Amino acid sequence: MIDQELNQEGVASLAAISFEVIKTEKHTGARLGILHTPHGSFETPMFMPVGTLATVKTMSPEELKEIGAGVILSNTYHLWLRPGEDIVQEAGGLHTFMNWDRGILTDSGGFQVFSLSKFRKIEEKGVHFRNHLSGEKLFLTPEKSIKIQNALGADIIMAFDECPPYPADYKYVKESTERTSRWAERCLIAHDRPEDQALFGIVQGGMYKDLRKQSAMDLISLDFPGYAIGGLSVGEPKPLMNEVLEFTTPLLPANKPRYLMGVGSPDSLIDGVIRGVDMFDCVLPTRIARNGTVMTSRGRLVVKNATYARDFRPLDENCDCYTCRNYTRAYIRHLIHTNEILGFRLCTYHNLYFLIKLMEQVRQAIREDRLQDFREEFFEQYGFNKPDAKNF
Amino acid sequence: MIDQELNQEGVASLAAISFEVIKTEKHTGARLGILHTPHGSFETPMFMPVGTLATVKTMSPEELKEIGAGVILSNTYHLWLRPGEDIVQEAGGLHTFMNWDRGILTDSGGFQVFSLSKFRKIEEKGVHFRNHLSGEKLFLTPEKSIKIQNALGADIIMAFDECPPYPADYKYVKESTERTSRWAERCLIAHDRPEDQALFGIVQGGMYKDLRKQSAMDLISLDFPGYAIGGLSVGEPKPLMNEVLEFTTPLLPANKPRYLMGVGSPDSLIDGVIRGVDMFDCVLPTRIARNGTVMTSRGRLVVKNATYARDFRPLDENCDCYTCRNYTRAYIRHLIHTNEILGFRLCTYHNLYFLIKLMEQVRQAIREDRLQDFREEFFEQYGFNKPDAKNF
Repeated sequence: MIDQELNQEGVASLAAISFEVIKTEKHTGARLGILHTPHGSFETPMFMPVGTLATVKTMSPEELKEIGAGVILSNTYHLWLRPGEDIVQEAGGLHTFMNWDRGILTDSGGFQVFSLSKFRKIEEKGVHFRNHLSGEKLFLTPEKSIKIQNALGADIIMAFDECPPYPADYKYVKESTERTSRWAERCLIAHDRPEDQALFGIVQGGMYKDLRKQSAMDLISLDFPGYAIGGLSVGEPKPLMNEVLEFTTPLLPANKPRYLMGVGSPDSLIDGVIRGVDMFDCVLPTRIARNGTVMTSRGRLVVKNATYARDFRPLDENCDCYTCRNYTRAYIRHLIHTNEILGFRLCTYHNLYFLIKLMEQVRQAIREDRLQDFREEFFEQYGFNKPDAKNF
Repeated sequence: MIDQELNQEGVASLAAISFEVIKTEKHTGARLGILHTPHGSFETPMFMPVGTLATVKTMSPEELKEIGAGVILSNTYHLWLRPGEDIVQEAGGLHTFMNWDRGILTDSGGFQVFSLSKFRKIEEKGVHFRNHLSGEKLFLTPEKSIKIQNALGADIIMAFDECPPYPADYKYVKESTERTSRWAERCLIAHDRPEDQALFGIVQGGMYKDLRKQSAMDLISLDFPGYAIGGLSVGEPKPLMNEVLEFTTPLLPANKPRYLMGVGSPDSLIDGVIRGVDMFDCVLPTRIARNGTVMTSRGRLVVKNATYARDFRPLDENCDCYTCRNYTRAYIRHLIHTNEILGFRLCTYHNLYFLIKLMEQVRQAIREDRLQDFREEFFEQYGFNKPDAKNF
């Protein structure tokens, strides 16, 4: 077989990825690790920028590397519709198509089916819904999702799941979660490229602990190379998210990576790491950037506001990113105000740098067994301890 | 005096710029030169990318340097309205504000007053018009234009002129051109920073040779450090533009730079150089890029068209720019089709590179006394010799 590696015992291994836990933080159990993928090895805990349509909005691949991004996420649903997975495959896969030689993770499309389409009908076989662009009727199944993801060729691919809304009643979540487990098994069977694409299972179960436990056990019995925690950050209060997370992560195997989907606010990243999460993704830093909002060490700053028109300081005086080294709030405010693309670029660059740098600091705090102290200092400076603190 | 230089005769010179003609092409009289500015020296003939609002749309300053841009153009009218010249001045001038340490030229605002505002009333003192964004009444005079340009601090600034429409009757153009000459003198008097900002006069006169001649003589008598040719590329046929140009440039002093305003199609650049022009600017390459149209050695290519959905070749197989080295038509088509900013970036990068590289080739052809041959080869390959040739 081509491209296979021998593991330490000299046994041929077909695994696309491998994961090493380097250290566990003394007080919290937070993990410092290395994720090895067919496109490079990356330290965890990590934040993955989102590149929905095979581009992290406004950024070039070189800029992402400069920022220190390792794995980026791309959306199966969106690429399925445009340009179509066949074109991406013909181009040589997603890495070649978008000129990105580091890691890529694709989601399953499940979340978009449930969040973007007004109409949908769930059956055991899959989900009927409408294309959010054209209105055309579509049908997505676990098999189809995996087939598309196999064509796209990301290093990590995700099982097709249902992400139940919040709140949802016990009966609904129970049925949904059981179906997600059955779908996970079908995904595993349908998966054609286990040797170079790692398929992760997604733990669901809503806010119900017994359902989370059942979901975790179902998936673990299928022995996925990694596990995501889905169905959080869907509108529930943060303390509830942390509670469910605290309950769920210990159920997962210690030697596999854990991925908390759709979470990217600085406080939730830190709180997720403290609860044993290794990987995160979120559109937050890129989306708010295009609206002229940035994260700084002193909290968020809406640079498009008129108050910054004559402010010649950098976005964040404690930041050494390209944007902060070269541009003032006044200039960026002018660019955002006049809808200039460079403004969106500069804010996006800064926000991604901020979160990737935050994860570096988190990893350093794990090394030094001072993650709780780091959390306190960071929260205090950012303003999360204020009674009127915003979500990020 | 600070910052002044001694010229070859050891005489203190207050000139902001100087211009050397290195060589004149044997067959055409086209000039190879060097323009020295307070922000670097740049070879001519040159093409200047347009950065209307203190940013060349979609590009970073580093990218512009990578492409080889020397002087960029920024628009006084637009910066006057947003963010306001006072803010730019407070930031330390346009160079500091936008993080660009090479040359900048600002226009006078005259062209925008005439092209953007629906309402305007021209008086001897200046022009009444309405802000194209808010509808607010404004009044711009030669003195005001220069005051704004002095605050912005570009290396080269332009006299406030009227650009008459095409077609326009003799009487209208005569009165307009005479007023433009009177305004040019007022600009010179109002100019507060001749030691580090070179003020260019603008030759008008429409398509009337005697008026062009009178305008040139009026301006030359004021001894500007450089001369622009305005009022061309305003809708007249290209042969007529070339005819007026051919008549006008010989009227201008050989030792001063000549700048043809608003011209940027490859054929017009070459034909302008052949008629003795040294500097050009145009929004064409950046504007069409954002609409998914690029210039290639084989003519223009509308990459957003569906026909390129599966075309895995670069935009231009003869181009070695960043875009062409790393991305396919299929990917760029996908990006433009989905409105992704990286698509606009990649096309803009390529188009600017194409024109700046074209000017390099033109300079080389001047060195080798083969500009006419170069023109024939380029026109043939680009498709300008076809009977149905488009304008660029």
